[in-house]
Amino acid sequence: MEPPLYGPKTYDAEPARDPRLVVNSKEPFNAETPPKELVQAFITPSHLFYKRNHGPIPVLNDAERFHLIVDGLVTKPLSLSLDDLKRLPKNSVAVTLQCAGNRRTALNEVKTVKGVGWGLGAVGTAIWGGVFLHRVLELAGIRPGTKCSAAGGRHVEFESVDRCKEEKGGPYRASITLAKACSEDGDVLLAYEMNGEVLPADHGYPLRVVVPGVIGARSVKWLSRVTVRSDESQGFFQQRDYKMFPPSVDWDNIDWGTRQPIMEYPVQCAVCTPAEGQCIRTGSQVTIKGYAMAGGGRSIERIDVSIDDGNSWTEARRLPPSVPETIGKECGEVSAKWCWVLWELDVRLTTPCVIVAKAVDDSANTMPESMSSIWNLRGVLNNSWHRVRVDGTAEFNARL
Amino acid sequence: MEPPLYGPKTYDAEPARDPRLVVNSKEPFNAETPPKELVQAFITPSHLFYKRNHGPIPVLNDAERFHLIVDGLVTKPLSLSLDDLKRLPKNSVAVTLQCAGNRRTALNEVKTVKGVGWGLGAVGTAIWGGVFLHRVLELAGIRPGTKCSAAGGRHVEFESVDRCKEEKGGPYRASITLAKACSEDGDVLLAYEMNGEVLPADHGYPLRVVVPGVIGARSVKWLSRVTVRSDESQGFFQQRDYKMFPPSVDWDNIDWGTRQPIMEYPVQCAVCTPAEGQCIRTGSQVTIKGYAMAGGGRSIERIDVSIDDGNSWTEARRLPPSVPETIGKECGEVSAKWCWVLWELDVRLTTPCVIVAKAVDDSANTMPESMSSIWNLRGVLNNSWHRVRVDGTAEFNARL
Repeated sequence: MEPPLYGPKTYDAEPARDPRLVVNSKEPFNAETPPKELVQAFITPSHLFYKRNHGPIPVLNDAERFHLIVDGLVTKPLSLSLDDLKRLPKNSVAVTLQCAGNRRTALNEVKTVKGVGWGLGAVGTAIWGGVFLHRVLELAGIRPGTKCSAAGGRHVEFESVDRCKEEKGGPYRASITLAKACSEDGDVLLAYEMNGEVLPADHGYPLRVVVPGVIGARSVKWLSRVTVRSDESQGFFQQRDYKMFPPSVDWDNIDWGTRQPIMEYPVQCAVCTPAEGQCIRTGSQVTIKGYAMAGGGRSIERIDVSIDDGNSWTEARRLPPSVPETIGKECGEVSAKWCWVLWELDVRLTTPCVIVAKAVDDSANTMPESMSSIWNLRGVLNNSWHRVRVDGTAEFNARL
Repeated sequence: MEPPLYGPKTYDAEPARDPRLVVNSKEPFNAETPPKELVQAFITPSHLFYKRNHGPIPVLNDAERFHLIVDGLVTKPLSLSLDDLKRLPKNSVAVTLQCAGNRRTALNEVKTVKGVGWGLGAVGTAIWGGVFLHRVLELAGIRPGTKCSAAGGRHVEFESVDRCKEEKGGPYRASITLAKACSEDGDVLLAYEMNGEVLPADHGYPLRVVVPGVIGARSVKWLSRVTVRSDESQGFFQQRDYKMFPPSVDWDNIDWGTRQPIMEYPVQCAVCTPAEGQCIRTGSQVTIKGYAMAGGGRSIERIDVSIDDGNSWTEARRLPPSVPETIGKECGEVSAKWCWVLWELDVRLTTPCVIVAKAVDDSANTMPESMSSIWNLRGVLNNSWHRVRVDGTAEFNARL
């Protein structure tokens, strides 16, 4: 008898992790990139990239036996080995992934929210290598550009090997529309590489989905099955959890069915350095650094930075996207369409002070000034103006 | 010798207009729909639809002699008569058009802005009938889905018969990307009908462009030429004027070249009734009515209404889109994808009070709380929370 395809679901076989990661929960392992590391490079190294998990990391015992199932409302169901997938044309797409819970912790200042706490670092940019989902769906009989398949399919569900308690031991599932899945502009990828190397265990080895412009929850890791359906995934993470409610809704009056699952994220911006509570001598010359991005492939039109708590603003300078030579050699030219903008502003600080940053996207969407207007019980999509308090002298430096 | 194709450019031949329109400028005629009329119906009657002009209305003397020129970086330049266009497949698209200057006047409360003043009514929804631009471009040799034509075309310029002083007597021009123009999902229409009738003179007779999801300035009226270009239109209204600057930029430090032309508009919402300054006896039962929409085909996720100046919020109820039978008979089934949502909320008002409304779109984009953060010298894209002050007694009713 063959050994099981996957190792037992325990926390004994977790991969080694970079000690610089900020660990928000150990089991399951949820950890984010320190803000100062985020702005070191346009491409986030895999070992520093945020890790978002719902259980132990699945351990694949035998890559030869792995098969991706493609089924549901397709004319030609498929079972594809990793080699089958790698024989299809390979594409590389640079994508910034952001967890819907990025900046969640701060929302507790308004009122307690439920979910793993995250600072600014549940976000990162990588170059993902693999095969476009629309190519695989074409093999299954659904042509690029299709919105509704011949058999009535309008959604594509991704099922993971990952089993989690929210699904009562069943697999993590999520879906996107067939229109997005089949769009040649949508760039939805089934990825087996990250930053020019084999996809790490923490990021979904051997295969994951990468859905550009959309919250990370739809980019399902440890992918085992792609199912074309008439309706959305009925999974917990599609029908519960990743939905946005108004501030007036709390756990005693919530009706999950009244909201759509979150897909594209809104315009976002954060200051990564200086850090919250950092002590800087008044009069010092400082380079403020941060990131900004918008969902849905929208670009960043402008980044405004204030060093006087929002009374006056200066536009930040964008850094050109740059890819390390080693990765570029592997991946070739990539577009920055789905990526963040790293930005900088040189200022002389009079401390103590409050630095504020906000961005505007190419559809003139702006970020909300306060957290109170967007507070929601799950603490998702906090894109309020990002404020960082800088202290003037070591005495005031209690927060560090 | 034949008489000229168009009558002289004077204000002597202006069409008759509905006396209910709020006239913001007489020559050129710029007028908006009264807010209470906006919420009367999902489809705005043509005679009440806002009129935005830059000069006298062009008068076509002989429809038989009209020809649309399609040229530039195409393989087969065209000259199409109205009959040629009408022989192509006809489509109807319901589209909410909004002037970039809608709600401009209010921005003067922050600091003076330049441009024709507009209240809430530079917006309206109509069913436009005509031929998809992608079909016409296909006849000219550019297939649907093209982003860059064989000859290097990446933009499509629309030229009007309308000559205006901003162009030093030259024609009004604007452009969109070839990708949007050729997208079968983009629904860009060359319209010869409005609400099931011949396109009225005020709205571009005999032919106009309708670009869904984008500010009205790109939906060029009195269309005479469609030109595929490698670059954007270099026209005044593309390179100047309809651009969004940060609050720090004023007329003494403006650099037009630093910004992109505005295309998609951000999420928007306004209270149409009660009216600003209206007198309502305290304790009265009132139905608050308004509109909400988002650019780029994004849908409205939620409309929040407050009757205590933003301290507490209640969700408004959406009205289903409805098309008058006479128009529906002419146009058939249409999608509401590119349309506003009309909404209502029944409340008991304690007056005086401030009603506030804001909306959230399906990408979780929100509206800014204050006007000061989005003030811009041209007064475009005011989508701040909409506030309406309601008075309690006739004595306080000075604003009416």
